[in-house]
Amino acid sequence: MPPLRNDRLLRALRREAVDRTPVWIMRQAGRYLPEYRATRARAGSFLNLMRSPELATEVTLQPLARFDLDAAILFSDILTIPDALGLGLHFVEGEGPRFERPVRSAADIDALRLPDVERALPYVFDTVRMLRRELAGRVPLIGFSGSPWTLACYMVEGGGSDDFRLIKSLAYTDPAALHRLLALLAEAVGDYLEAQAAAGAQALMLFDTWGGVLSTAAYREFSLAYQARVVARLAASAAARELPLIAFTKGGGQWLPEQAGIGAAALGVDWTQELGAVRAATGGRVALQGNLDPIALFAPPQRIRAEVARVLDSYGRGPGHVFNLGHGVLQQTDPEHVRVLVDAVHELSAAYHV
Amino acid sequence: MPPLRNDRLLRALRREAVDRTPVWIMRQAGRYLPEYRATRARAGSFLNLMRSPELATEVTLQPLARFDLDAAILFSDILTIPDALGLGLHFVEGEGPRFERPVRSAADIDALRLPDVERALPYVFDTVRMLRRELAGRVPLIGFSGSPWTLACYMVEGGGSDDFRLIKSLAYTDPAALHRLLALLAEAVGDYLEAQAAAGAQALMLFDTWGGVLSTAAYREFSLAYQARVVARLAASAAARELPLIAFTKGGGQWLPEQAGIGAAALGVDWTQELGAVRAATGGRVALQGNLDPIALFAPPQRIRAEVARVLDSYGRGPGHVFNLGHGVLQQTDPEHVRVLVDAVHELSAAYHV
Repeated sequence: MPPLRNDRLLRALRREAVDRTPVWIMRQAGRYLPEYRATRARAGSFLNLMRSPELATEVTLQPLARFDLDAAILFSDILTIPDALGLGLHFVEGEGPRFERPVRSAADIDALRLPDVERALPYVFDTVRMLRRELAGRVPLIGFSGSPWTLACYMVEGGGSDDFRLIKSLAYTDPAALHRLLALLAEAVGDYLEAQAAAGAQALMLFDTWGGVLSTAAYREFSLAYQARVVARLAASAAARELPLIAFTKGGGQWLPEQAGIGAAALGVDWTQELGAVRAATGGRVALQGNLDPIALFAPPQRIRAEVARVLDSYGRGPGHVFNLGHGVLQQTDPEHVRVLVDAVHELSAAYHV
Repeated sequence: MPPLRNDRLLRALRREAVDRTPVWIMRQAGRYLPEYRATRARAGSFLNLMRSPELATEVTLQPLARFDLDAAILFSDILTIPDALGLGLHFVEGEGPRFERPVRSAADIDALRLPDVERALPYVFDTVRMLRRELAGRVPLIGFSGSPWTLACYMVEGGGSDDFRLIKSLAYTDPAALHRLLALLAEAVGDYLEAQAAAGAQALMLFDTWGGVLSTAAYREFSLAYQARVVARLAASAAARELPLIAFTKGGGQWLPEQAGIGAAALGVDWTQELGAVRAATGGRVALQGNLDPIALFAPPQRIRAEVARVLDSYGRGPGHVFNLGHGVLQQTDPEHVRVLVDAVHELSAAYHV
């Protein structure tokens, strides 16, 4: 493999000195880009797109052809593992993911068997290998997975939810069964991220999209404990132990000081938090990734630059910051505004690294 | 008016000694009760129900006939003020509220005129008067309004939203226009709560349902500042200045210490926070209301009691706690489980007030 020519992301995740704050954008390969929509139309369906290494590679690289981004992130879905577990992933137009066979009872949970991720999801690792070849050291490639709690939410609810009534009811009525499900998922997520590392991923991200719907006690018990288990599993893996991992609980700002103790290199921060306050509260134990409100990209260019300056200033001087949005870029976003953001981060951040 | 025979709620909101922690339940008059569904069916529509003082009084009193609750809360909708502003409120089955004429531009905003709430919403104040007669001093009656920010969200989005793209875009592109809208709404909300007080409400609540979708800077500018304006307006009102007000920003746990400074008697706390930590962080300046996860009511009775004990213990000894859920009771809830909760609060809380 050719050497990595832009290592800002990896250095920032390790809290080493950089010349500029690295920047990438959650969902940077996505529907806001016309070239993505064209590839998606050619694929015929989201699942076809995600399962084709050629097409998934193509869309992963599209934002890098437009913008001066400091990282690529594997194009995939967070529900590959439940699909490998046989739940029957499909997408309902305008309604998001659905499972044909959700997991609703202890019996459903006990019927699940740990999947062989390499055999069940070969297209993911083929995409990672193809991306490393195509990137040729330009920027690092981030691999990712949903967190055990977040995967369990989708598996029990059968799709998205407003209130997470079914899985939270399970947590109250049969916590032991839910713990068995989460333990299985932690193993599968560990295997999955390790296999992405072995295939060439250079950093990893764990998306705990739904941890924020829990009480503090339930977050510790059902989400954080299993994030920690995944991190520990990767720390013991020859393929993955050198890779920095970013853990991100959306809506989990109040728990960042605790989350800083699970062994992740970095924590994702959503836009409801002040980065400077989070940096102080986590005591320099982790790098921080975030945290501009995705809606700021609907502002005029001058205002986007001012918001970028505000986020950089909130984090302050020195290493350990990866610029990103606080959640994924919205499909209605003007791509030219993403360019304004990326360029502003590079231009305005130099002053924080002298 | 007969004297108030149960003043636990009012005493707790003023942080005075009580014999038991008072308890009421957000949305305690609602679809989880079969008698509510029967009245709703008789009314023909939610709007008919809300606009009939007789029927709104009937459903307000239904949970008090079943459970040993320490307060009644006016049955109404948080969108009465936008309706009075002429936006055309209607309800789409299974999709929640919609406005026929949403407010999308500075011109739309500048065309709005402060409504005369007494003339535009007579049924609300008639219901308050009827409820005071029917309650006859049994428990206090809580009046309420949506916060200016939350009303503005519905008015600009035209209904609910996943991302609040339209109103947050307006905040970035024309903040002055949004401030004009919020200023008008703060006046209207002040008038509305004052008129509820004059009609007989004995405590007030301000529901900032959507404040939690903002960044810290935007929360201060667009939500908290206008909550403070409403509180100041009521403090200067002969009819309302003696009434304790509960301000509740769902998803706003990180801002509770700041929110404690707006002059509200009490703050609502959602279930993602630990009450004990919030009590410490707000330094006894306010009473706290909350904060059991509504999904805990899907647990078996013994577990509900354990969760009640956990919340009481987290708040700790002494006055200033109003027990409630962290958000509204879900329609799928078993009413008998609500009884378990209410009785457990009274039984288990005595030990915290000796």
